[in-house]
Amino acid sequence: MDLARLSLNTKTVPTLTLAEVIEHCQRRGIRTVAPWRDTIAPMGAAKAGGMLADAGLGLSSLCRGGMFTAASAAGRQAAVEDNLRAIDDAAALGAPVLVLVCGPVVDRDPRASAGMVEDGIAAVLHHAQDCGVRLGIEPLHPMLAADRSVITRVADATRVVDRLAAPPSLGVVVDAYHVWWDLELDESLGAVGGGGVLGFHVSDWASPLTGGLASGRAMMGDGSIDLPALAARVEKSRYAGPVEVEVLSDLWWRMPPDHVLDTVVERFVAHV
Amino acid sequence: MDLARLSLNTKTVPTLTLAEVIEHCQRRGIRTVAPWRDTIAPMGAAKAGGMLADAGLGLSSLCRGGMFTAASAAGRQAAVEDNLRAIDDAAALGAPVLVLVCGPVVDRDPRASAGMVEDGIAAVLHHAQDCGVRLGIEPLHPMLAADRSVITRVADATRVVDRLAAPPSLGVVVDAYHVWWDLELDESLGAVGGGGVLGFHVSDWASPLTGGLASGRAMMGDGSIDLPALAARVEKSRYAGPVEVEVLSDLWWRMPPDHVLDTVVERFVAHV
Repeated sequence: MDLARLSLNTKTVPTLTLAEVIEHCQRRGIRTVAPWRDTIAPMGAAKAGGMLADAGLGLSSLCRGGMFTAASAAGRQAAVEDNLRAIDDAAALGAPVLVLVCGPVVDRDPRASAGMVEDGIAAVLHHAQDCGVRLGIEPLHPMLAADRSVITRVADATRVVDRLAAPPSLGVVVDAYHVWWDLELDESLGAVGGGGVLGFHVSDWASPLTGGLASGRAMMGDGSIDLPALAARVEKSRYAGPVEVEVLSDLWWRMPPDHVLDTVVERFVAHV
Repeated sequence: MDLARLSLNTKTVPTLTLAEVIEHCQRRGIRTVAPWRDTIAPMGAAKAGGMLADAGLGLSSLCRGGMFTAASAAGRQAAVEDNLRAIDDAAALGAPVLVLVCGPVVDRDPRASAGMVEDGIAAVLHHAQDCGVRLGIEPLHPMLAADRSVITRVADATRVVDRLAAPPSLGVVVDAYHVWWDLELDESLGAVGGGGVLGFHVSDWASPLTGGLASGRAMMGDGSIDLPALAARVEKSRYAGPVEVEVLSDLWWRMPPDHVLDTVVERFVAHV
């Protein structure tokens, strides 16, 4: 894929400061970034947004809000408040999309937990609309249901969008590592309502994993995912925006950022 | 759940010989077993079936056939022949069901791989019918799609059953570890055609896993799955047969079989 579409998700090189990320991107012709909140926390969202604008870098998203599930009402309310702040951060930063990792199964009840996700998003949706920030529900791989997200398939995310009346400010983020195995993926991509597909993340699946369940991704080209075919399927669902490289990997995190980013650029062009 | 419904899958205690499995089951009041093919290989299926019958033990299934996907036609034909032998073994053993683990994604193409699974089952289905053996398609967790099974959801298995004209000799095996996360599970269980649900396996999901992706299961009661609720949902789909305890776990495999089996019995009664 054309390098112009590459957006660097900062969790791919988590030891770098925002200033270092900017320098690395400029040197390699990477035009877009997707920061995590911990990357912008040291200087705050407004200043981070200014740094990126001054450098001529665009934004694909802010990672991440969500985590709406909790056993107690107080816990769920705290999550809503954290998401309101995350939406403010996305707006101040200039990020068009806040990615939502929706929260794990609680009380051993996937369906009830999915209901908490709907309630949580409903509680923050108007604020997102007011701020001009779109919310992107990212399904995570089912192996992360107990730890991170009860929403595991594009079809699950679409159902949430539909139940909240499919507003244009709510859509779905597609991550190759999380959804590549789904035999109903094409039908699900074709049925995404609301704001539609709001982001596309790439890495690869190789077993054994390169680390833990949440940090076990492979570099593009090293695994079992036909990324060009998947990219074509996502484009068919009318997404033509930046493509985030998000390689959360205990293996790659141990390598020098220069090597990681050289590899990211080379593999993006050759294997996505 | 009543101990009378417990069936011991021999992979829970893989170091035991069939004679040792029989002795352990008799001592604990376990009435049913589900051997893997490697457990019965030393004496052959007919002799193994005689040993179990003499001991008064029933069978829930033989594990396992399948692995229909392969990049080459010769590889797929070899799989068909192996499955014909597995069906013969199940018949000679007296196992009512042969469990099918259908085979991994090949050539980075999940849909084409699922087509190979359909073709493979179609090629052996008549032999199964002739032998009085039912074939149970077991969806495995999506994290095993690249290694073991492109069929990852009950809905995927049901689709294969339907595409093969839903014969009574073909159905679905439900394993808690593999499918507990699926938000559409109830609808999928309600839609299983052909022979319907032909088996139910229990263990538990806890993260971090107790081992590798295929051998990382937890003991019932140690994880995130509401097993009594899931058992009720499976019963609602009209399955009232034996419930196999299949704890594939690098952790539990290191413990003495006596301790593992004492725990299995205790947890089955208290947590399923």
